[in-house]
Amino acid sequence: MLRQHIAATITGVCERHGFEPLQTPIIEYAEVLEGKLGDDESLIYRFEDHGGRRLALRYDQTVPLARVVAQYAGQITLPWRRYALGPSYRGERPARGRYREFYQADADIVGSSSPLADAEIIAILTEALSALGFPDFVTMLNHRQVIGGVARASGLDEASAGRVYRAIDKFDKIGADGVRDELLRGDVSPQAVAQILTLVQIDGAPTDVLQELSERLSGDERALAALANLRAIIGGLEQMGVPPERYKVTPRLARGLSYYTGLVFETATPHWPEGSLLGGGRYDELVGQFAGRPIPTVGLAFGIDRLHDVMEELNIGPRPATTAVAYVTVFGPEQAASSLELARELRAGGVNTLINLDGGGLGKQLKEADRKGVRYALVLGPDEVARGEVMIKDLRGGDQRAVPRGEVVAALG
Amino acid sequence: MLRQHIAATITGVCERHGFEPLQTPIIEYAEVLEGKLGDDESLIYRFEDHGGRRLALRYDQTVPLARVVAQYAGQITLPWRRYALGPSYRGERPARGRYREFYQADADIVGSSSPLADAEIIAILTEALSALGFPDFVTMLNHRQVIGGVARASGLDEASAGRVYRAIDKFDKIGADGVRDELLRGDVSPQAVAQILTLVQIDGAPTDVLQELSERLSGDERALAALANLRAIIGGLEQMGVPPERYKVTPRLARGLSYYTGLVFETATPHWPEGSLLGGGRYDELVGQFAGRPIPTVGLAFGIDRLHDVMEELNIGPRPATTAVAYVTVFGPEQAASSLELARELRAGGVNTLINLDGGGLGKQLKEADRKGVRYALVLGPDEVARGEVMIKDLRGGDQRAVPRGEVVAALG
Repeated sequence: MLRQHIAATITGVCERHGFEPLQTPIIEYAEVLEGKLGDDESLIYRFEDHGGRRLALRYDQTVPLARVVAQYAGQITLPWRRYALGPSYRGERPARGRYREFYQADADIVGSSSPLADAEIIAILTEALSALGFPDFVTMLNHRQVIGGVARASGLDEASAGRVYRAIDKFDKIGADGVRDELLRGDVSPQAVAQILTLVQIDGAPTDVLQELSERLSGDERALAALANLRAIIGGLEQMGVPPERYKVTPRLARGLSYYTGLVFETATPHWPEGSLLGGGRYDELVGQFAGRPIPTVGLAFGIDRLHDVMEELNIGPRPATTAVAYVTVFGPEQAASSLELARELRAGGVNTLINLDGGGLGKQLKEADRKGVRYALVLGPDEVARGEVMIKDLRGGDQRAVPRGEVVAALG
Repeated sequence: MLRQHIAATITGVCERHGFEPLQTPIIEYAEVLEGKLGDDESLIYRFEDHGGRRLALRYDQTVPLARVVAQYAGQITLPWRRYALGPSYRGERPARGRYREFYQADADIVGSSSPLADAEIIAILTEALSALGFPDFVTMLNHRQVIGGVARASGLDEASAGRVYRAIDKFDKIGADGVRDELLRGDVSPQAVAQILTLVQIDGAPTDVLQELSERLSGDERALAALANLRAIIGGLEQMGVPPERYKVTPRLARGLSYYTGLVFETATPHWPEGSLLGGGRYDELVGQFAGRPIPTVGLAFGIDRLHDVMEELNIGPRPATTAVAYVTVFGPEQAASSLELARELRAGGVNTLINLDGGGLGKQLKEADRKGVRYALVLGPDEVARGEVMIKDLRGGDQRAVPRGEVVAALG
């Protein structure tokens, strides 16, 4: 029920922003997924169907989105906001908040390169996590070409940049010393390593961080364009009313997936030291791999399982024991028809209602209702039927009261 | 969006009846599924994971339910009503309304042998299909031991009974002659075939059919018990207010799955000649295969894809073009902040709202909104901003009106 609450909250925020639902198959042809995921490709589950076709369980909902956009190009009006909720599969080592089958809620804006699109994605995650009741979370923003600029400013060529991304990406896990060791082992010069570590640790208010990076990367046009893009995205966040304490610019954020081209972001909370709650970014080339023309896209994926595990740990969100609000007892065979009729009336009035099925004494029935966590047990004995009343027992508080038959729905509402 | 509407309607009815959601993995160990499905076992998709374990895509949500009930026996208070919504997989030949990946909404009552449980399952499907707007549908009811009685009354032993079930099950596809030919080819005597065909074609009001079957199977205690059970279930349907035109007793209904032990049912509509909309039944032994003790269970599975296809064909149910009700245009860079603020206000007021991302002239923006099927486009030009107004254009009717800023949400509500 908590998982449903999380999913409904996120998809509700998405629909408020006019996102449309898309459900794609969980299984794709293996070649659709291959060649898009870099090192992670080994995590894909593959198998053959009964006709010998090579299939794969989807690794995420992003590559299937790209396939769909290309396949149904004529039916989609761009920019297109779509959300998707479903499972994906990765052959990773399971850990707290990380499962081989995991559910994600994705929200992507396809076909716009506007920084407002990037800002809207950040606004959505901020609204959703706030609606879920997360007490403090921060989204770290960065841009692929800021990291590229850091690598270039340190004298590294494009080929070495990948190594730098991967090392920097582990900063919050292995610390500055760990990154230094890894870069040195990767044949990056001590001077370059020092420069990289200085740049990626720039911290402060977003505009200050952007300003300092602009000065230090002033000779690098691609990096400056990236910083201008981040500045425009932050302007959009302000106009969209995203609270400033909810985001910052973090130049060491790299994100593993190879398909990001612009903004990258991750949202973290101090209550979940294992890792980020969710992440995403801009990937302007992936959709084009299927469509044959560039289709700029930005999006994110909420990890439902991880959000669930953190919410359980923090004890936030609704925690009802059951869907039912009322349990209608059956006093005896003669009262069964009245009890069933009462249950119908309650349901028609919008009250989720269980009906006793197997008879037994009233005590046994009340115990069943209580064990299920139902709040109200309703008793319709011969006296109540004769008086046109229903006895409502509050199983939480313990008190009971007789209510005229016609007022039961209102009494439970 | 229609699929979501179908799923929400069905799960809403389930929750009204106090059913609780359960989500199980889509992948099970292969041995969990093996040995439960009879001939259909060849339809299972199997594969090995990266550790060499034999896995399978689930064939339905019933066998996983049985596994869960056994595995979490201590945490579940019986009787337990659970619903589940998700995909299953069968390597069948795809056809209209039949896919290899298909979504089902299951509702089962675990741990009650009461005929009221059977009746509640039929009540749920009747309420759900009515809420979805299906104009006419009928649920055919039968009992495994009625068919057993038919076979026994025709002088056949248990071993031959399976052949009889399979032949009878095709009655509505191949007709009486087809069934006759198949039984004769299966070495059933012409006298027995004639007897079987007479019995399975008994038709009429439920109580009349039950009465005639009781007379013709009067020497068969198991068949008589089955008929008494059907009579009690129909009594429950009456008490639950299920309209009598929505069900009948159909002695030729067999259902393919080998795990049914009591009531079997299928719901059909004349608008879908290809087959049934959904089906289910009582399976008192399957859960016990995992739990080690008999746990009587009855349930059904709605085929979401099939319901969707039939609803599309019959043109019933909501058919919105998009989730968004309003599209906020951006007149120019100076008005962007006002437009974004307006979009926020609309969303906070519960109006699903798209915001323009990529600028361009007002005409281009209105065209985008119209192509997306959004009903209202909102314009906030310099004049409107100065007057504290918003221009609302109804893209369906064509008329437009200026509304004070504070009244926009109400105007669209």
